[in-house]
Amino acid sequence: MILTLSCPDRHGIVAAVSAFLLQRDANISDAQQFGDASSATFFMRVVFEPADGDALAAIHHAFSPLAERFTMHWTLRGPEPRKVMILTSRFDHCLADLLYRWRIDELPMEVTAVVSNHPREMIGHVDLGDLPFHHLPVSAADKPAQEAELLRLIEQTGTELVVLARYMQILSDDLSRRLEGRCINIHHSFLPGFKGARPYHQAHARGVKVIGATAHYVTPDLDEGPIIEQDVERISHRDTPEDLIRKGRDIERRVLARAVRRHIEDRVLLHGTKTVVFED
Amino acid sequence: MILTLSCPDRHGIVAAVSAFLLQRDANISDAQQFGDASSATFFMRVVFEPADGDALAAIHHAFSPLAERFTMHWTLRGPEPRKVMILTSRFDHCLADLLYRWRIDELPMEVTAVVSNHPREMIGHVDLGDLPFHHLPVSAADKPAQEAELLRLIEQTGTELVVLARYMQILSDDLSRRLEGRCINIHHSFLPGFKGARPYHQAHARGVKVIGATAHYVTPDLDEGPIIEQDVERISHRDTPEDLIRKGRDIERRVLARAVRRHIEDRVLLHGTKTVVFED
Amino acid sequence: MILTLSCPDRHGIVAAVSAFLLQRDANISDAQQFGDASSATFFMRVVFEPADGDALAAIHHAFSPLAERFTMHWTLRGPEPRKVMILTSRFDHCLADLLYRWRIDELPMEVTAVVSNHPREMIGHVDLGDLPFHHLPVSAADKPAQEAELLRLIEQTGTELVVLARYMQILSDDLSRRLEGRCINIHHSFLPGFKGARPYHQAHARGVKVIGATAHYVTPDLDEGPIIEQDVERISHRDTPEDLIRKGRDIERRVLARAVRRHIEDRVLLHGTKTVVFED
Amino acid sequence: MILTLSCPDRHGIVAAVSAFLLQRDANISDAQQFGDASSATFFMRVVFEPADGDALAAIHHAFSPLAERFTMHWTLRGPEPRKVMILTSRFDHCLADLLYRWRIDELPMEVTAVVSNHPREMIGHVDLGDLPFHHLPVSAADKPAQEAELLRLIEQTGTELVVLARYMQILSDDLSRRLEGRCINIHHSFLPGFKGARPYHQAHARGVKVIGATAHYVTPDLDEGPIIEQDVERISHRDTPEDLIRKGRDIERRVLARAVRRHIEDRVLLHGTKTVVFED
Repeated sequence: MILTLSCPDRHGIVAAVSAFLLQRDANISDAQQFGDASSATFFMRVVFEPADGDALAAIHHAFSPLAERFTMHWTLRGPEPRKVMILTSRFDHCLADLLYRWRIDELPMEVTAVVSNHPREMIGHVDLGDLPFHHLPVSAADKPAQEAELLRLIEQTGTELVVLARYMQILSDDLSRRLEGRCINIHHSFLPGFKGARPYHQAHARGVKVIGATAHYVTPDLDEGPIIEQDVERISHRDTPEDLIRKGRDIERRVLARAVRRHIEDRVLLHGTKTVVFED
Repeated sequence: MILTLSCPDRHGIVAAVSAFLLQRDANISDAQQFGDASSATFFMRVVFEPADGDALAAIHHAFSPLAERFTMHWTLRGPEPRKVMILTSRFDHCLADLLYRWRIDELPMEVTAVVSNHPREMIGHVDLGDLPFHHLPVSAADKPAQEAELLRLIEQTGTELVVLARYMQILSDDLSRRLEGRCINIHHSFLPGFKGARPYHQAHARGVKVIGATAHYVTPDLDEGPIIEQDVERISHRDTPEDLIRKGRDIERRVLARAVRRHIEDRVLLHGTKTVVFED
Repeated sequence: MILTLSCPDRHGIVAAVSAFLLQRDANISDAQQFGDASSATFFMRVVFEPADGDALAAIHHAFSPLAERFTMHWTLRGPEPRKVMILTSRFDHCLADLLYRWRIDELPMEVTAVVSNHPREMIGHVDLGDLPFHHLPVSAADKPAQEAELLRLIEQTGTELVVLARYMQILSDDLSRRLEGRCINIHHSFLPGFKGARPYHQAHARGVKVIGATAHYVTPDLDEGPIIEQDVERISHRDTPEDLIRKGRDIERRVLARAVRRHIEDRVLLHGTKTVVFED
Repeated sequence: MILTLSCPDRHGIVAAVSAFLLQRDANISDAQQFGDASSATFFMRVVFEPADGDALAAIHHAFSPLAERFTMHWTLRGPEPRKVMILTSRFDHCLADLLYRWRIDELPMEVTAVVSNHPREMIGHVDLGDLPFHHLPVSAADKPAQEAELLRLIEQTGTELVVLARYMQILSDDLSRRLEGRCINIHHSFLPGFKGARPYHQAHARGVKVIGATAHYVTPDLDEGPIIEQDVERISHRDTPEDLIRKGRDIERRVLARAVRRHIEDRVLLHGTKTVVFED
C-alpha cells in the first residue's frame, strides 16, 4: 500500500506515522519525505506491506484521527492498477508509446478508454486492440456538450487519471477545475519558454540551442499548471522546424511516460502551483 | 588561417573557394558549411595552412574579387590570439573560470583588461596577477560618461571581443549597437524562459524541473540577442533558490567558456537574430 | 543524391569534387567533410540535386575517374528508401519503436522482413501488419543452416541493412564478415564497460551512477565493432536490476533508431575500427 | 546535526529513530532513507536541530543503546566544517576548482593542507594563498617513507577527508586500507570502461561517442573502489585526444566537486563495494 500526505510542518510527524505503522505490524519498504522550509509544509510518501489480513479500509479508518491531528491532505491506496483514460488527436506517438509500455507491463494501469476528437481511422499507426474508443468531435458550438459527455465517460468508467497525449483541444476552465490534480498534459516546449501554439516553430525562429517538453497538471490557467517533469535535447542551426518536431516527439513521449508513471505510483504531490516528485 | 563567409546561396560557392585555395597551394585542414534553405543563405568556415610565404594581406587582397562576386560577408584571420576584455561585477565565478582556462592555454586569447563597476578589492576569489584592471563605477548620472570611457578602453587596447561575465549593468542601446557581434553576455536562465532579473528565483517560483544558462550576443533588445550556446541541469523540489544559484554557477561558467571559445575560434556566424555555430 | 567518400588526405579533393558537381550543374544542398590528422584520411558527404535529366548511372560513370585518381572509397545513391531487415528475439521494444517510426515516415526505409528465432506469436506487443515474417529458430546444430537461410533471405530481398534489434543470437564470424558495415547491433551497455551478457546486472553489481546503450556495426570481434551512437541515463542506488532494464529500454530504442537513421541517410562512414558520423 | 546510519533492515527502525529525536525535542529538517532489498540493509540520513542546549556528546551517548539494539554503523556530526586535505600533481584544474568553491563558501570545509609530489612552483595556475603546502616527492625507493609522512600529516592535522585531485600516484594497499571510506579519487574515465593509464587516449582509440569521469573511494583494488558520482559529455569523430583531455577537465572537476560536497555533507554511505548517495 502507498500512503501519501502533506501537512503543516511540525515536530513529530514522522514519529507518529512510523509508530502507527509499527504498531499495526506493517513493514515499510520505502519512505521519502520533504520539508519545504519556505512554506513550512511537510510531504511524505510511504510504501508498506500491511500485516496479514489488515485491510485498506481498516487502516484508513485507523489513520484518520492521526491525519486529522496533523491537518493532513492524504491518500492511501492499494496495489490495484490505476484507471487511466487517454485523449489524443492527430499525432499518436504519445498514445502509441503509452500503450506499448502498458502492454509490456511497464505502466501499472488499466486503460479505461481512448478518446479522440478525430475518428478511429485517424489513429493510423497504433493498434488499439479491444480498447474502448470514443470519437468526440469538438466544435465551438458543441464543446460544452462534448465535455459533458467526456465527464460522463470519466465518471462511468471510474477513471482516476486523464492523460492528454497530444490532445489538441483546450479544456474549459470548468472541466480543468473538476480534473484538478488528475489530468496530465504534455506540452511540446520547455515551459515557460514558448507557451501557446506551434512551440517548435517559435523555438526555431528564436534560434535556441536546446529544445524540451513539459508534462504538467492541467489548470484553467493554460500552460501554467504544476510541472511534473521536463526534459531536453540539444539542437543546432542545421535543424529545421520539421527536425525539431521529429526530435521533439522523442522528448514528449518519454517525458509524458515518466509523468504518468510517477502519478500512478503516487509519487507526485501537489504543492500549490508546484509539485513535489519523489523519484523512483 | 581561418576564413569565414556568409552570402546568398547559389551554385559554385564551394567550388570557387576551394579552387581559390588550391590555386594558392593552401592546405585545408578543416571546413564546415551550411546552407539555410528558408533564407537561402550559405555559411562557410575554412581552416587552412597557407603556402610558405603567403601572407594574410596578400590572400585577403586576392580573395576580395571572389567575395564581391558572391556578395559575401567574410573575415580572414591569422593565428594570433584574439584580444578580449572581461567585464564583471560582484560574482566572479565566470571571471575566475575564464582566467583559469586562459592561464592553462585552453582559451587562445589575450586579456586586454578586466573591468568592473566595483573596486578591485571586490574581486575576492581570483588572482588577477598583472592584468590591467579598471574600476568604472556606474550610476544613473554618469552612465554615458562611463560607457564613453569603456569604449575608449576597448578602442585603445584593440579589444576584439567584450565578455560580460556576470556584469550586472545593462549596456545602453548605443553601446550595444557599436559592439554588435563582438560582445557576449551570459544570462543565468534558459532563455527565453525567465528573462529579466532574478531568474533563479523565478525558476523556483514556477517549479521547473530543469534550469539553464544562455550565452548570447548583446543587442539593444535586452535578453533577445542571438543565442550562441545553452546548457541545462536537472533540479528537484528539494532545491532552494540558493541551491539553484549554486548549481547555476556551474552551468553559467561552462556555457560562457564554450561561447567565448567558439567566438574566438571564428566558429560563430551571425544569421540575423540567430547564429550558425560550427562546433568543434 | 548522396555522395560519400573517404580517401588519403591531400590537396584538392574538395576543389575537384565541387568542380565536378558545378560542371554538371548539380546543386549542393548539404556538404560535410572531415580530415583525420592522425591517419591522414579525408571523409566527405555531399547531398546534391542533379541537373534535370542527369541520371545516377551517368553521374556514377563520370565520377569514377576522379574517384580513382584520389583512391576513394565511395558511394553514390539516389533518394529511394534503403531496404532494411529487422532481426529480433523475445524483447520487442526496439522492433516496435523502429516500426512505429517507419509507419509515421520518420525513417525512410523499406522493411524487407522481420526475422526472429522465436515464432510470430512471441512478438506480442507490436502489430506486424503485412510485413513478411520469418521464424528461424537457432540451435547449436542448425546454426549454419539457419544462417545460410538468413543470408539467402537477405540476398533475395535485396536487403541493404540488417538491424539486430535485441536479437539475442551471436552471428558467426563468417556471417559477421559478409555483413561488414551493413549490420547494426544494439548493445545494452555503455561499451566498453560491461561487455557480454546481462550488462544491466553487471552495472548494478558495480554500482555505477550512469547506464547507457551502444549501437555498433557487427564484426567477428564480439562487442568490439565500430561504434555509431551511444547515450546514457543517470541512475541511483534505488534502482534495482529490473529498474535498469526498464530505463535501459528507453536508451536502447533511441540509440538504435538514431544509428539506423544515420546509416540509411549515409551519414556513417567507416574509419577502421571507428566511425565518422556526419550528424543531422 | 547530521545522523547517518546503516543496519540490517527490520521493522521499527524509523519509528525508533524518530521517537528518539522527538523525545529530545529535536526538529528534523531533512530525512532520507533507503532499504536495499537484495542485501536487506537499511540506510538513513537525518538532519536535525537539537533542542536548545542539547550537546552532541549527550545525544551521542543517549543514542548508543538504540544503535546497538539495531546493530547500526552510525555517525553523528555537528555543523563544523570537515577537515580536508587535497593531493595534486601536475594538473591543477581540480585543485583550482575545489579551492575556488571553498573560497566562495560553496564547500563547507577547512583545507588542512595541499600536498603534491611536485614542488610548489609547479602549481602554476592557482593561488594557494596562506594554505599549508607540502612537497612530498615520490620515488620507488622512498614511497613508504613518503606515505608515512603523509599519514603523519593527516593525523597531525586531524584531516577527515583526503581528496586525490588528479594526484598521479597510486597509494599503497596499506595506505588505501587505512583511508578506507575517507579518501576520494577522480578517475578520468567513465569506469569501468578504460581503467588504468591514459583513458582519454584509450577512448579515442576505441571511437566511443561519449566520455566521462568517475569519483570513487580509494581501495587497494585500483579503479574498483565504490563509485560516488559519474558524469559524461558527448564527443565526436572530430575530437582529438587533446580535445578529449580538454573536455574531460570540465567533467572531472564537476564530478569531483560533487563527490566532495556530498561526502562532507554526510550524504554518501558505504554499501559494500557500492555507495548509497542521498542527493541534495
